[in-house]
Amino acid sequence: MSRLTIVKIGGEILDNPRRLSRSLKAFAAMAGDKILVHGGGKTASEMCVKLGLTPRFVQGRRITDAETLTVVQMVYAGLLNKNIVSELQMSGCNALGLSGADANMILATKRSAAGIDYGFAGDIREINSTMIGRILKLGLVPVFCPLTHDGHNQFLNTNADTIAARLGSALADSFAVEIIFCFAKKGVLENESDENTLIPGITLESYRHLLQRGVIKDGMIPKLDNAFKALSDGVKKIYIIHADALSKLETETTGRGAVITGTVLTLS
Amino acid sequence: MSRLTIVKIGGEILDNPRRLSRSLKAFAAMAGDKILVHGGGKTASEMCVKLGLTPRFVQGRRITDAETLTVVQMVYAGLLNKNIVSELQMSGCNALGLSGADANMILATKRSAAGIDYGFAGDIREINSTMIGRILKLGLVPVFCPLTHDGHNQFLNTNADTIAARLGSALADSFAVEIIFCFAKKGVLENESDENTLIPGITLESYRHLLQRGVIKDGMIPKLDNAFKALSDGVKKIYIIHADALSKLETETTGRGAVITGTVLTLS
Repeated sequence: MSRLTIVKIGGEILDNPRRLSRSLKAFAAMAGDKILVHGGGKTASEMCVKLGLTPRFVQGRRITDAETLTVVQMVYAGLLNKNIVSELQMSGCNALGLSGADANMILATKRSAAGIDYGFAGDIREINSTMIGRILKLGLVPVFCPLTHDGHNQFLNTNADTIAARLGSALADSFAVEIIFCFAKKGVLENESDENTLIPGITLESYRHLLQRGVIKDGMIPKLDNAFKALSDGVKKIYIIHADALSKLETETTGRGAVITGTVLTLS
Repeated sequence: MSRLTIVKIGGEILDNPRRLSRSLKAFAAMAGDKILVHGGGKTASEMCVKLGLTPRFVQGRRITDAETLTVVQMVYAGLLNKNIVSELQMSGCNALGLSGADANMILATKRSAAGIDYGFAGDIREINSTMIGRILKLGLVPVFCPLTHDGHNQFLNTNADTIAARLGSALADSFAVEIIFCFAKKGVLENESDENTLIPGITLESYRHLLQRGVIKDGMIPKLDNAFKALSDGVKKIYIIHADALSKLETETTGRGAVITGTVLTLS
């Protein structure tokens, strides 16, 4: 099976133009088939405020009402996604910007309002892995923004970590998939305020211990739950690294694990 | 050669949600390979005003400064393009939204500021017809917004009529191309305020007479110049019709010319 690398870049990278440029150059230089998934960042909230809407979050997740969704759609699919595509093209990477509606790539179901009503938030129902495989075969590099659709003319806001993990699961039958989550810390830390406490490797077993000990908490729990689900679905390896380390990842021929500073997740 | 239909829908259709829906349903129902190109409409100007920018036009063409370009990019590529893709998907049409930067589809050069400075306006330099052909072969339906790029990380605003015509020229070697320009009038009129004065057919020769007589003037001149250029590049036929007539166009097997109300352009 040929290798496929899925890279996810979060909002804290999108909010820093120089860091974003560095990450995109590193991504463009990576060998082999690859997919980029990007989050949202502050721009959508800033645009909401400019347009007189009040951004609302519960437990770090955006409450997306209809008006907010329109702004989010403009910012994610029009501004951020196209800026990334344009910058990747400049670096010779043949990027193709996608929402979940384009080529019917990602179908989702609106999250039920029982409990917290997140509005137009979507849980992924189906990924069109056949079409993604065909697009990759054309030498194109899909760039996904965090929007899915329900197939009935409704866009839905979907967490970018989840999209990256689910793409991995869906493509693990056809490719040797590795997922790289880039964020603004070195990796998973024992003490989240001390970058010297990096945990270099986590297995499913050690993950259970880290959860029990309360080392992994809050927003890291769904991120790692998603990641271990993807591993159990057949994804080969998952890296959680600082965005600036992306350029230090080695190419296919030299292997990766040896030189990486970050956290590597494996099943065992 | 297999047939390819390129449909262009203008701003006056995008500004009318019911007319837009009807046009998209008719487009979705059309047989064979097809491409949709859409214009901008009023939404970009309205969004500029909401964000404190003053829309400026010279001879009907937008002056696109850097701030305006950001808004135009959000509205064209994020809002309008994705709304169209989502609505087409609902009708079973496997639409793929594209700017000129996506898959490096349309390269353009910033128009020189000699004379009127239109800002970030682009004149098309190259269309990636090979990749468009491959995308069509996957059963996908490209939907182009009126944005091109220069390959150096700069988006450019490009007239949608021109994009439709140039796509036709570029694809005429591989397909039997027909272009349908949809707008809010029946076709080309002898007297632009009287819908009963439709000119059903125009050849290159009769076009010259109509120009001399001043029947065709203002914004219709670049539209028809573009169209006749596309015909001379090998496009088979060009229709200028009311958007509402799109559903009345016949399918490949029954032929089109017989039943259409509109203006048909041919070389001779």
